[in-house]
Amino acid sequence: MKSIKPLREKKNTAILLIHCPDRQGILATVTEFLNKNNGNIIYLDQYVDRAQKVFYMRAEWELEGFAIPAAKIGEYFDTLIASKLEMNWRLYFSEDIPRMAIFVSKMSHCLFDILSRYTAGEWDVEIPVIVSNHEDMRPVAERFGIEFHYFPVTTENKEEQEAAELELLKQHKIDFIVLARYMQILSKDFVAHYPNKVINIHHSFLPAFAGAKPYHAAHERGVKLIGATSHYVTSDLDAGPIIEQGVTQCSHVDTVKSLIRKGRDLEKIVLSNAVFKHLQRKVLVYKNRTVVFN
Amino acid sequence: MKSIKPLREKKNTAILLIHCPDRQGILATVTEFLNKNNGNIIYLDQYVDRAQKVFYMRAEWELEGFAIPAAKIGEYFDTLIASKLEMNWRLYFSEDIPRMAIFVSKMSHCLFDILSRYTAGEWDVEIPVIVSNHEDMRPVAERFGIEFHYFPVTTENKEEQEAAELELLKQHKIDFIVLARYMQILSKDFVAHYPNKVINIHHSFLPAFAGAKPYHAAHERGVKLIGATSHYVTSDLDAGPIIEQGVTQCSHVDTVKSLIRKGRDLEKIVLSNAVFKHLQRKVLVYKNRTVVFN
Amino acid sequence: MKSIKPLREKKNTAILLIHCPDRQGILATVTEFLNKNNGNIIYLDQYVDRAQKVFYMRAEWELEGFAIPAAKIGEYFDTLIASKLEMNWRLYFSEDIPRMAIFVSKMSHCLFDILSRYTAGEWDVEIPVIVSNHEDMRPVAERFGIEFHYFPVTTENKEEQEAAELELLKQHKIDFIVLARYMQILSKDFVAHYPNKVINIHHSFLPAFAGAKPYHAAHERGVKLIGATSHYVTSDLDAGPIIEQGVTQCSHVDTVKSLIRKGRDLEKIVLSNAVFKHLQRKVLVYKNRTVVFN
Amino acid sequence: MKSIKPLREKKNTAILLIHCPDRQGILATVTEFLNKNNGNIIYLDQYVDRAQKVFYMRAEWELEGFAIPAAKIGEYFDTLIASKLEMNWRLYFSEDIPRMAIFVSKMSHCLFDILSRYTAGEWDVEIPVIVSNHEDMRPVAERFGIEFHYFPVTTENKEEQEAAELELLKQHKIDFIVLARYMQILSKDFVAHYPNKVINIHHSFLPAFAGAKPYHAAHERGVKLIGATSHYVTSDLDAGPIIEQGVTQCSHVDTVKSLIRKGRDLEKIVLSNAVFKHLQRKVLVYKNRTVVFN
Repeated sequence: MKSIKPLREKKNTAILLIHCPDRQGILATVTEFLNKNNGNIIYLDQYVDRAQKVFYMRAEWELEGFAIPAAKIGEYFDTLIASKLEMNWRLYFSEDIPRMAIFVSKMSHCLFDILSRYTAGEWDVEIPVIVSNHEDMRPVAERFGIEFHYFPVTTENKEEQEAAELELLKQHKIDFIVLARYMQILSKDFVAHYPNKVINIHHSFLPAFAGAKPYHAAHERGVKLIGATSHYVTSDLDAGPIIEQGVTQCSHVDTVKSLIRKGRDLEKIVLSNAVFKHLQRKVLVYKNRTVVFN
Repeated sequence: MKSIKPLREKKNTAILLIHCPDRQGILATVTEFLNKNNGNIIYLDQYVDRAQKVFYMRAEWELEGFAIPAAKIGEYFDTLIASKLEMNWRLYFSEDIPRMAIFVSKMSHCLFDILSRYTAGEWDVEIPVIVSNHEDMRPVAERFGIEFHYFPVTTENKEEQEAAELELLKQHKIDFIVLARYMQILSKDFVAHYPNKVINIHHSFLPAFAGAKPYHAAHERGVKLIGATSHYVTSDLDAGPIIEQGVTQCSHVDTVKSLIRKGRDLEKIVLSNAVFKHLQRKVLVYKNRTVVFN
Repeated sequence: MKSIKPLREKKNTAILLIHCPDRQGILATVTEFLNKNNGNIIYLDQYVDRAQKVFYMRAEWELEGFAIPAAKIGEYFDTLIASKLEMNWRLYFSEDIPRMAIFVSKMSHCLFDILSRYTAGEWDVEIPVIVSNHEDMRPVAERFGIEFHYFPVTTENKEEQEAAELELLKQHKIDFIVLARYMQILSKDFVAHYPNKVINIHHSFLPAFAGAKPYHAAHERGVKLIGATSHYVTSDLDAGPIIEQGVTQCSHVDTVKSLIRKGRDLEKIVLSNAVFKHLQRKVLVYKNRTVVFN
Repeated sequence: MKSIKPLREKKNTAILLIHCPDRQGILATVTEFLNKNNGNIIYLDQYVDRAQKVFYMRAEWELEGFAIPAAKIGEYFDTLIASKLEMNWRLYFSEDIPRMAIFVSKMSHCLFDILSRYTAGEWDVEIPVIVSNHEDMRPVAERFGIEFHYFPVTTENKEEQEAAELELLKQHKIDFIVLARYMQILSKDFVAHYPNKVINIHHSFLPAFAGAKPYHAAHERGVKLIGATSHYVTSDLDAGPIIEQGVTQCSHVDTVKSLIRKGRDLEKIVLSNAVFKHLQRKVLVYKNRTVVFN
């Protein structure tokens, strides 16, 4: 029952993400390249980190009428520009719909939020598979007609289970993974297969309350705001590049239970915003920080 | 597939909501009444509007061990206290699960958000029926195993269709109605059957941009924040008592389309928060304003 | 006692603000112009309104080493680029400190906030004069060593008083005016002398509660959030281009008095943020809307 | 030049703050006590921590017409009620204006914000003295006509300097101290003289970035929100009971400098809100957490 009514605009564009050492003329060079090849730019944003001397850019232009055939753009751009300017660049096409896998444990709020958007056609994405270390969410997956795979993980079987998961992801040609409150730490090896391609939601305002039971810790500390943080997973627990954060007010009347309740809404919205930014190719990562374009 | 894992605490309590002319001793009188009948109070909140001279109170106590049998509490309270103090009061029991109907049109975001919470057992509520003036949401209703009724409304048939809807609601013993982006104005007569029992979400920061196409109006005006407002429906369009409001930042880069997108998240969270407050019996209405207890 | 400890970086730059009909290559053309004249760009931001087909840009570059002498930049840019691309453009130099006048009535919170920042050297601005229709704020002005002029305004003398005010502003070479809760409507004629150069703070979330006594109206309506809006003054009351808006939570416990109290903090911060954006030359106005760059 | 135009209502009331082990009937007992002595209650709020089984209450009533003379209230209340219910209680009178000392270092934003409110008569407080470990703020103090004392602190002279400060505070009958960005750690001994009576503002969202240079740490971590926290000072650095917290959005475009700039506004508002709550006697502390009444 995919796509009740798509909200996205259909378009046929190329998206270029760049970061490189800053120097004079980069912006002029890139825009010139697009212009003289008749690229109708529909989005351009750039930012220069003056302290680090790094130039960041996102450009999106229509393929229709562009002088260079899609298949050749990367090669041309690399030869003519990127290689000369030591650019770290990626090229995407709006018609290549990213394929996402959801990892979930027992809580349904983030999963439901993502599947609701998916079903409503809110995002340009395919979600062929849901992975879990528990059976609880199987009925939800089935209800939305998505393959559900159960991989119980123990310290003994973790290595082989992750290998099986990776195999499954490979079969499904998964581009990136969303941990929708997946309460199981992924190994360094696993993460290494998806660098800056595993998006997690942590139920605190990082770096506060990293690790387990953040709401209990927040209640114990008597904070007046609780938060949620979505970040790319790295080998360093809860320390990856932050994509999005949100907070909501609380007070002395809140119990741990009510913090958990309030937090769920924060978690699902913050996670979905981060996933949406990632899907739009608007997030660049450099030195454990993100540039998130509008 | 109701209730994956209930989050609510089971309890057996009575809830008393009161408002009346303020005078000395009301609070002492009521708490005294509960105490001397061995009512273990688990929640008490009260507020006095000094300008209007009105006293508001919400008390919740355990029925177990309470000296007065549940069936008699109302009678006793009325005779001994309420009648003497000109109280406007209501008594609820936590074990009476409220029955809610959802009215929806073509947009799924609020509907999905409510059904996700319902399925997760987040709320103490029963949702036996979904009503719509379009067929679009039928598959969603079916997916969640909830009866779906289609009532196309035209200026000609509006009266008979509303009559049929009221009949349906009666059959299902519906206590209150949630308009989850229901794009159809209810008649005064219809609303009169559910006073302060029809909860709407308006996609603007009321009273700004009341009426149709608020996001277009907001974009046209160039606001830097967009909002959503949940309120009880009265015969006066978008002018009923406000339960909850939220806002989110926007800027010159936002198109009407992106405002609509951002607004959806705001709408669903604001509406669900309002419904939750209503379900907890924490909302009192007096002179077109609400008292919303913590 | 100006400038306890300046927080601003000293720099010697030129700032170019542009808006014009969008077409291919504008960005490349402008950046190329700066690059080939050895302009070291330290800030560049641009935005294209695809619906209106308008291109907006702000560029800032170091004058040191720039091939074109400061005095000639405008002329060159106009001849070589602006005139050909139908550009609406303005050129500023960081060393020309803008001169601002404050208009105030009886309330001190916005005035104090602005003078505190001024004294702390937080802003690159000169404030030679304060104008008021009441004497109340004279001691504050004196305390900060700023000229204070009292212009009581009546319907009879309004025209001559405004003429006198304009004369005073002229003497002081005032570039723009900040209405720090100035409770007196400026005439169309007066405003015409400072197009998009009079910044007002309105104590509501416009367009809600435009006009007088917004907090009373907000309380009457029973809103759950109150707001403040800073905008450029036009001949149309409270309807000018919005620069910045903010909101804060309120509830049934708030009286009109407590809303006024909470609102003051909102007003002073929102106004000061708007003034700061204006001072940085980051606000462009087009068709009663603003583009506010980061 | 104190008090341009007082905003506070003059009133003659008594305020009772209580916390004690929860048991049936406390609320009825206290309200009964006030009622039968003709105390016209103008504010009452209470909260029960069900987990800790602690009852908290704040009551305020008019002294005019109250049966017990002000001087006797404490004694009567203690004998008749408090002692029997193991109450931890404090009694205040609205006519006793609290006396506050400000400790500041080199930054003026919090100091100006407090003195602006003081001058505007926004708060019921006296500020007889400002203490600093630097001379920078002397001119500000003089401008507002407040005694300024300079106590340069070194590791060698810290003990004697704090002794001198305590002596000064004693002379001025200081009730509580506000650290308006005072960059100097107070000794355990010093703090012991003012338990839960020293209010600090920390420029981060505690417990994140406790200690020095939080904005540098926040920038390094790449957070998307920065915060400020006002808390009572305890012997444990940045770990005292939190009174108020706030956050504001930031992004990749923010430098450490712009975070510091944005943070200043947050700091001054959060600190002033906390001071105001403290002045209203609405903050209770229990086990390193606060109950902050509305």
